[in-house]
Amino acid sequence: MKLATYKDGSRDGQLLVVSRDLATAHYASGVAGTLQQVLEDWNFLSPQLQDLYDALNQGRARHAFPFEPARCMAPLPRAYQWVQAAAFMSHAELLLRAGGAELPAAPDTAPLMHQGCSDDFCGPCDDVTLASEDAGIDFDAQLAVVSADLPMGCTPEQALEGIRLVMLANELTLRHVATQEAARGSGLVHSKPATAFSPVAVTLDELGSAWQQGRVHLTLQSTWNNRKVGLCDAGAEMSFHFGQLIAHLCKTRKLRAGSVIGSGTVSNRGQESQGQMQWPKGYNCIAEKRAMETLQDGQAATDFMKFGDTIRIEMKDPQGGALFGAIAQTIQPVPAPVSARKSSLATESL
Amino acid sequence: MKLATYKDGSRDGQLLVVSRDLATAHYASGVAGTLQQVLEDWNFLSPQLQDLYDALNQGRARHAFPFEPARCMAPLPRAYQWVQAAAFMSHAELLLRAGGAELPAAPDTAPLMHQGCSDDFCGPCDDVTLASEDAGIDFDAQLAVVSADLPMGCTPEQALEGIRLVMLANELTLRHVATQEAARGSGLVHSKPATAFSPVAVTLDELGSAWQQGRVHLTLQSTWNNRKVGLCDAGAEMSFHFGQLIAHLCKTRKLRAGSVIGSGTVSNRGQESQGQMQWPKGYNCIAEKRAMETLQDGQAATDFMKFGDTIRIEMKDPQGGALFGAIAQTIQPVPAPVSARKSSLATESL
Repeated sequence: MKLATYKDGSRDGQLLVVSRDLATAHYASGVAGTLQQVLEDWNFLSPQLQDLYDALNQGRARHAFPFEPARCMAPLPRAYQWVQAAAFMSHAELLLRAGGAELPAAPDTAPLMHQGCSDDFCGPCDDVTLASEDAGIDFDAQLAVVSADLPMGCTPEQALEGIRLVMLANELTLRHVATQEAARGSGLVHSKPATAFSPVAVTLDELGSAWQQGRVHLTLQSTWNNRKVGLCDAGAEMSFHFGQLIAHLCKTRKLRAGSVIGSGTVSNRGQESQGQMQWPKGYNCIAEKRAMETLQDGQAATDFMKFGDTIRIEMKDPQGGALFGAIAQTIQPVPAPVSARKSSLATESL
Repeated sequence: MKLATYKDGSRDGQLLVVSRDLATAHYASGVAGTLQQVLEDWNFLSPQLQDLYDALNQGRARHAFPFEPARCMAPLPRAYQWVQAAAFMSHAELLLRAGGAELPAAPDTAPLMHQGCSDDFCGPCDDVTLASEDAGIDFDAQLAVVSADLPMGCTPEQALEGIRLVMLANELTLRHVATQEAARGSGLVHSKPATAFSPVAVTLDELGSAWQQGRVHLTLQSTWNNRKVGLCDAGAEMSFHFGQLIAHLCKTRKLRAGSVIGSGTVSNRGQESQGQMQWPKGYNCIAEKRAMETLQDGQAATDFMKFGDTIRIEMKDPQGGALFGAIAQTIQPVPAPVSARKSSLATESL
C-alpha cells in the first residue's frame, strides 16, 4: 500500500492512504491519525489500512478525493532516528579519486553512517530556505526505508524482515560546510539542513520483483533545473543492502519502530571508453558531477545550486507509472523579517 | 519544577511531577500524559504543572506517592533529536595531548557536535547491556538541556530563552569502536549505545543562582564502582554555553520542541604543581583518566569498564540536597537467548 501525510497545522500531520496510481486518497483517520502510530502497532493497524487501500484502488472508498502532493508533509513528518549511510561505494570512491586521495587497499567491510537531524523533515514540495547560496548547496537523491522494532545484534536477514516502508529522499547537503565539519572532526550538523522525502511511502509488495534482498532494482531519476542529470540504477551497485545497513546500526543497541535509514547517494560506476572515463548514467548529486569533471578535464566546471534552482527526484515503476511521486523543491533565500519587508513595502509605495 | 516519567509499558511512559526534595510524586495525567506533549504546548500546559508542583511541595496534592527513581524512564524516553556537543574544550585538549597530537594554534570558535540516536534512551537505573566488554566501555557524565521550538539563525541569547529543562546524562561510549569509526570517517554510530538521563528534568528556576547565562555552576559527581572519581565544576570552564551550542545547531535549520542537547564530558583543566600536572577534581570519563596517566607516567594504567561495574552520576544543590536524582547503572552482558537458557537449566537439573 501507499501512505502519505497531509499538512494540517500539527507536527505529525494527518495520515492518508493513497491509490496505487497516486490519483486519489482517503483519510486514514478511522484507523490511525499518524504514520508513527501505525508503525508502533503495525500488525494490528496495517491490515485495516490495507483494506482501505484495496477499497480505494477499486473505487469503493466512500470519501476519496484527488491526491495533491503539494499538500504533503514527509510521510513521517518527524522521526526518532534518521541515519544516512553511504551504501553505494562508487560514490565515495569517485569523490576520493577526484580529490587525489588513495583508495583503500581492501574495500570496506562495513558501511559508513551518520546520524542526521529528524525533528523536522521537509515535505516533498516544500521549498528549501537557506541563509546563503555560497555554502555549496547540493541535492543528494537516494532511497530510504522505515523500520520496525529490531533487537540489538539482529542479523541482516532479520533486519530485512523489519523493513516496513520505502521512500525517496533528498538529503540536502551544504558541501563547503561539510568539508569544514569533516576537517574539524565534527559531525555533519549544520552541513545537513532538513531532508525531504517523497509524497508517499510504499510497502515492499508495491515494488514487486524490483525489491530483491534489500535492494530496489529501479532507476532513480534526478532533474536539475528541468534537465535530467541522473538516471542511475538503484539496485545492482548498492554495496550494502538495507538489511546490512540496519544490522550494522543494531550492533550495539536496539532500533525502535519508525527509524529512517537512507542509502546515501545512488551512484553507478564509471566506464572506460577510448581511454577516458564516462558516466553515461549521470549523477544524483552535484559533488559527483564535479568529481567527474575533475577526473576528465582536471577541474570542476559545474557550480552548486543557487537561489531559484529546482530539483526533482523520482522513480518510476517498470511500466513507467508513478511509484513514490516526485520530490520537487526550489532553493529559496530566507524571507526577510516582517519589519524589513514592511519598510521595503513602504519605500515602494512612495 | 521537577518532572519525571514512570515506566508503564508504553514508549513514552507516564509523566510525573516530583517534589523538590524528590521524596514524593504525583501523576500529571490531569494535565498531560507525556513530557513531549508538554514541550509542544509549553505555555499552556506548564503553568498547570507548576500548580500541581506547588501543591505537591506544600503537601496539598491529593494523590501523592513516594517517588522511586528505579521506576523511571528517561524524563523524555525518546526524542526527535539528541545532539552531543563538546562544550568543555579541556576534555578534547587533554585527549589530544595524551595522544601526542599538536593542539590547534587558535582555539576553536565553534563547538564540535554529533547527532546521536534518540529512539530509545535509557532510564536512570536501567542496566547497560552490551555484547562484549572488550569495546572500551566508558561512562561520560554531562549536562543536557531540552529545547523549545527555535528558528533558523537564532542568536545565543534567543536560544537561552528556548531552554525548557536541564538533566544529567551518561552518554555511554565504546572508546575502541569510536576510535575505529573516527579513523574511517564514519559518524559515531555503533560506538554510542543508548544514553541514560537523570530521574528528573528540572526547570531553570530550580537551579537558582547556579544557572548563569547558559551554564550550571555546580559540581558534577561521578562514582565508579563506589569510588568517587570526578567532582568537576560544570560551570566556569564550559567553553561554549548552552545558548551558543543551540545557536550553532540552528545555523542552517530550525529546531523543534523536545530536542536534547548534551554538553559533552564535564571536564576541568589540570594544574601544574612541582613540575607535574595534577587533576585534583578527577574525571567524568575513563578516557580522561587514561590520558592523565599517559601524560604523568607515559602510559595508561586504568582499564575501561567491565561487566558488573557500576557508575553513579549526580549533582547536588548548594545545600547538599538532591537536584536531579542519580543516574545509577550497572554494565551487564546481553542475556543469553531463551532457548540457550532453557537448555542450560535443563543441564543443571540433570
